[in-house]
Amino acid sequence: MVSEFVHRRLVEFSDTDLAGIVHWSRYFVFMESCEHAFYRSVGWSVHRENGERTIALPRGEVTCRYAKPLKFEDEVEIHLFVREIREKTIRYEFQFRRVKPEPVEDVARALLTVVCVGVEDGRMKSIPIPEEFRSKIEIAS
Amino acid sequence: MVSEFVHRRLVEFSDTDLAGIVHWSRYFVFMESCEHAFYRSVGWSVHRENGERTIALPRGEVTCRYAKPLKFEDEVEIHLFVREIREKTIRYEFQFRRVKPEPVEDVARALLTVVCVGVEDGRMKSIPIPEEFRSKIEIAS
Amino acid sequence: MVSEFVHRRLVEFSDTDLAGIVHWSRYFVFMESCEHAFYRSVGWSVHRENGERTIALPRGEVTCRYAKPLKFEDEVEIHLFVREIREKTIRYEFQFRRVKPEPVEDVARALLTVVCVGVEDGRMKSIPIPEEFRSKIEIAS
Amino acid sequence: MVSEFVHRRLVEFSDTDLAGIVHWSRYFVFMESCEHAFYRSVGWSVHRENGERTIALPRGEVTCRYAKPLKFEDEVEIHLFVREIREKTIRYEFQFRRVKPEPVEDVARALLTVVCVGVEDGRMKSIPIPEEFRSKIEIAS
Repeated sequence: MVSEFVHRRLVEFSDTDLAGIVHWSRYFVFMESCEHAFYRSVGWSVHRENGERTIALPRGEVTCRYAKPLKFEDEVEIHLFVREIREKTIRYEFQFRRVKPEPVEDVARALLTVVCVGVEDGRMKSIPIPEEFRSKIEIAS
Repeated sequence: MVSEFVHRRLVEFSDTDLAGIVHWSRYFVFMESCEHAFYRSVGWSVHRENGERTIALPRGEVTCRYAKPLKFEDEVEIHLFVREIREKTIRYEFQFRRVKPEPVEDVARALLTVVCVGVEDGRMKSIPIPEEFRSKIEIAS
Repeated sequence: MVSEFVHRRLVEFSDTDLAGIVHWSRYFVFMESCEHAFYRSVGWSVHRENGERTIALPRGEVTCRYAKPLKFEDEVEIHLFVREIREKTIRYEFQFRRVKPEPVEDVARALLTVVCVGVEDGRMKSIPIPEEFRSKIEIAS
Repeated sequence: MVSEFVHRRLVEFSDTDLAGIVHWSRYFVFMESCEHAFYRSVGWSVHRENGERTIALPRGEVTCRYAKPLKFEDEVEIHLFVREIREKTIRYEFQFRRVKPEPVEDVARALLTVVCVGVEDGRMKSIPIPEEFRSKIEIAS
């Protein structure tokens, strides 16, 4: 049973904007890479073809609080915590921590709710989280 | 005095992902374009050089709720409302509405808090919103 | 018969990088928006579903020469010219011109070859350019 | 003396577009990550502050040939070769190879010329490649 996951990432040149820091929209890409690496770690995938149906996890709602900026070539650790598991939705918390250069600092925090859906013939319908995935995750303590 | 602003945008190919819809991180780019067009409409700019000091409006916190997907070549109207003006922060609401193809539908809603800062010698410090800008905006009714 | 097309675009904050200029990867997004607007102008689309087959125009090769940088809120005019039409490929030239602020300046130039393909059951195969589109375009003089 | 460098990368969800493959503009971001990792490997940086002057390596020209598509969660190896060293410019070749899933396949190839510049008071001027960096690289055989 997994409830936490850590993903490390180096800030790239193309992540930055003219203010010299990581553009705020990139944090969503960063947390998504962490989330997808988390799925791979338990043998799941964010986009899974299952016969004629695709099972996906589109985003329902996200909140992100930015505390400190991130800069080019900073090393950032993204920490995922499973915060809520409901029939058709999961809520994750993400903590962003700059680990290089020192001192280590918390730079941002986010909450993300994803919704489990089945896609058939182009139509999307919310469905219960498949047992195959649900059985592998639990709430972080 | 301005309290609302509307910005129209066409969904581009590069906004989409393999699920065939606009990637969730792009909504932040869309609302930012609307916000910056709003600043231009009142003669302000998100990044304003003022002698040796740059005045900027970095993001403090954002929440976005996704109701319906957007697709390639959809036309979307982004509606900005000024929701709160404090000494050093402003809170905006953004309503995303797909206007083409019909029927017109609300597709997403976001709340964004920006913080006014002065940047001098690479150091960022929160400062009161300059009167030159503050005097032009008011809370949307 | 159309052989040229002009598309105008404002440089957005998220197009820039820490060097304070538009990131070089964004020029490909800019030329693609111009190309897709060109298709729409003749009633065609870069991604066209035709029964069970999708007709698409993936990129075969591109060259871009960067002469001058573009900055935030610059206005840029992207000028498309049809340079070559073969059975299954089209070659476009794109000229990027900054039109605001003055003086007007050529900032970049690109050559792009696109390949017409049919996609069926997930497999991609090059096909002749459909007459419906081919009949509307000609080489720029 | 270094003349080659290999960088490995996993295709992320946000790299893809509605055609289900990596968007062509992302190859430039991929090759840039490889290039910057190459600079770090020899103790150099693409953006180096040196007193009041910043030394940077903006792009002069790039060509990319796309042979096969890349998909979500593919593992790609980007191989950099130093192809030409002139007084103020360097030309790199990049070979993109999908290494997972098998079979291993060459998917794209690019040539990139970068120009060494000094930036002082916001003005950019081409300068000779600093000996500190030039002494560490050589033409790939």
